[in-house]
Amino acid sequence: MPQGRVREDWKRVLRLTSPQEAAERLLEYLKVKPRIEEVSVADCLGRVLAEDVVSSQDIPPYNCACFEGYAINSDDTAKATRDNPADLRVVGRVLPETKNIPTVRRGEAVFLVTGAPIPQGADCLVKVEEARLEGDRILVFRSFSKFENVALKGEDVRSGETLLKAGRVIRPIDVGLLMGLGFSKVKVYAKPRIAIISVGRELYLKSLECRDPPPNNYAYVVKGLVECFGGSADVLGVFPDDVELVKGVLLRALEAYDAVFTMGSCSIGINDAVPDAVNELGKPGVLVHGLALNPGKPAGFGIVWGKPVIMLPGHIVSAVAAFYVLCLPLIGAMTGRNAEELSPHVYAEMEDHEETGGACRFLRANVKDINGRFVAKPMHGGANVMVTLLRSNYFAVLPPKTEVKKGEMLKMKALTLLDALPR
Amino acid sequence: MPQGRVREDWKRVLRLTSPQEAAERLLEYLKVKPRIEEVSVADCLGRVLAEDVVSSQDIPPYNCACFEGYAINSDDTAKATRDNPADLRVVGRVLPETKNIPTVRRGEAVFLVTGAPIPQGADCLVKVEEARLEGDRILVFRSFSKFENVALKGEDVRSGETLLKAGRVIRPIDVGLLMGLGFSKVKVYAKPRIAIISVGRELYLKSLECRDPPPNNYAYVVKGLVECFGGSADVLGVFPDDVELVKGVLLRALEAYDAVFTMGSCSIGINDAVPDAVNELGKPGVLVHGLALNPGKPAGFGIVWGKPVIMLPGHIVSAVAAFYVLCLPLIGAMTGRNAEELSPHVYAEMEDHEETGGACRFLRANVKDINGRFVAKPMHGGANVMVTLLRSNYFAVLPPKTEVKKGEMLKMKALTLLDALPR
Repeated sequence: MPQGRVREDWKRVLRLTSPQEAAERLLEYLKVKPRIEEVSVADCLGRVLAEDVVSSQDIPPYNCACFEGYAINSDDTAKATRDNPADLRVVGRVLPETKNIPTVRRGEAVFLVTGAPIPQGADCLVKVEEARLEGDRILVFRSFSKFENVALKGEDVRSGETLLKAGRVIRPIDVGLLMGLGFSKVKVYAKPRIAIISVGRELYLKSLECRDPPPNNYAYVVKGLVECFGGSADVLGVFPDDVELVKGVLLRALEAYDAVFTMGSCSIGINDAVPDAVNELGKPGVLVHGLALNPGKPAGFGIVWGKPVIMLPGHIVSAVAAFYVLCLPLIGAMTGRNAEELSPHVYAEMEDHEETGGACRFLRANVKDINGRFVAKPMHGGANVMVTLLRSNYFAVLPPKTEVKKGEMLKMKALTLLDALPR
Repeated sequence: MPQGRVREDWKRVLRLTSPQEAAERLLEYLKVKPRIEEVSVADCLGRVLAEDVVSSQDIPPYNCACFEGYAINSDDTAKATRDNPADLRVVGRVLPETKNIPTVRRGEAVFLVTGAPIPQGADCLVKVEEARLEGDRILVFRSFSKFENVALKGEDVRSGETLLKAGRVIRPIDVGLLMGLGFSKVKVYAKPRIAIISVGRELYLKSLECRDPPPNNYAYVVKGLVECFGGSADVLGVFPDDVELVKGVLLRALEAYDAVFTMGSCSIGINDAVPDAVNELGKPGVLVHGLALNPGKPAGFGIVWGKPVIMLPGHIVSAVAAFYVLCLPLIGAMTGRNAEELSPHVYAEMEDHEETGGACRFLRANVKDINGRFVAKPMHGGANVMVTLLRSNYFAVLPPKTEVKKGEMLKMKALTLLDALPR
């Protein structure tokens, strides 16, 4: 019986690569060109912009009124006071439907609605509530400065100015800007389509017994992570650790998706099917198997048909650790961004002393705001202890042979945007 | 002609209320009871949990194997070394399909797959790669400690333990946990349904001329904000500043939505239709009109049929400022959360000196990470200068008569989760 046996060649198979080098090799080999698609501006919130947005016009297009009021020449108010107001004749009105803008001469005023162009001869605006209207005249009780209450041509945006850069996550204000500039569609990076496949005999037998709750609930954690970072993911199911079967499943998934993330069955047990399946599907096959990362050691990746297969371990903390090291840079590259940009960070004071051995460590921690200081409480526990992730909101990948002293400040990344809530 | 006239009673109408008091009155009057709905666990990512999730079981349910390996009694390895290994007889295997768990006596070992229960008599696990299998015996080359490589019953989760609290935004790991606990559905707070109505003669005339680009692009900024904070919003369109017409639109919107946010036509011009429309629809009508907030002064709110109508100014920066002061606490209450929890914060060093007068100030700033320090560059410009928001990612509401010195640390909130990326 094969169970309980390590494959004889395990020392040749599992060669630990540093997480950083592994990610670099992945991206270097793939030379990812992000797919671009056009979406309606009304649906672009939260997507990643794939083009620079340059203004084709000055905004405002002319000097215009910031408020409803009277356009005047500021010199007319030079000596105006409460007791000795300037007295100006209202010679016209610029309403939304007005086509011909009157000129303002000295001693005159023209009524403007908000946003109306400042007439020739005028250089400032008196808000309606600051003017006393008496018949066809207004009284102004203080001096006004040049351009007071006037929005200057191009003050908001200059023609030719780059307003939004490719790679920016589109925010609410950006949607308003794009619409204001006349965009109805906008180019964004397509969401990478990820297939998630769980492999393992125990899981497979469980899945035959009971499909609800799903035995591969960990796959849904990875699906959630993919979605939080801008991809879309389908959980394809649980498969037994049979190399031929896994090959078939991988082939079908690679046809329909941009990348496959497998979970489980990638270690050095004689039944671990994923690395062999990836290798048998053709060159180059497995490029990295084994990360110098704790937890996360059995992870790796291969390339099949020019598409990546990331092999995540079956234990949840290991899978999540390897996700940040391998999957996040991949999703970043597929959406025109650096992995570093995908998640907000804080600098937090370590509550405990931590040190690493020969491998990197995936340090997970609960970061809280304690009276204005961000304090990180590291979470310990085995690679299968899900609750340590539940109680964490930030993480760091500590390099080998590192000592972080209690009280030292450490840069930590939020696990997802949803976690970025230090309270 | 009425244009250019301030309503005569404007000093009675517009009474400035502090932003904090305004929000308190809004929530106090409404006594919001968040609506609760059930969603499939597969669709709950990012939603707000509406129930405490308590574990009904210990996880793991029994002491179990962290890895594939051999369950043994640690005492048998007390003297084991590389040269003098412990020699144990393999008396059984626990595979996923095994029903009867054998007992381990002294000098014996039982093979376990990952996750299998530790048999009676055993107290630790030797990983397969650490044991040398020779026929039906294994050699173990070092001493093992009690519970080494064993996940203890309840180590992850104890029965009766509260794992997730109502009000928590559901993260990827939570989805996995809920599934693991056997949930197929989960109670979440329903997304508040917000109607957005733009009112104003200029906008309305523009909307007749040209519907693409939409003249009420600012309404889409507010829609995006609502969505970023967990609500859903529909932009209902642009309407002229006619009190009867606005009343009709409000009534229809209030029937179908949980709240209405109006934009524009809420100041003290004689044509500003929204406050009168709200008042004429019945008691209590407008409760706050005027915020001691700069920009954002003309904002306010009323209650019609027990539902809130938040009146946002037409200028974009004022509208956004008032959104944070009035709409955000409302959305928070409608989703079981405090407004403070909705947006991540940082402590940032002010790049400029700032001071406020008699009113609060909505300070918007670009926060950057400069060599490990978060530095905030305040953005200045009129209430209509959209680009200042485009270049900002964090904000603070400064109290009246406050001085923030250059170099001082200020707590700033991210404009949205999407902005929480200080780089």
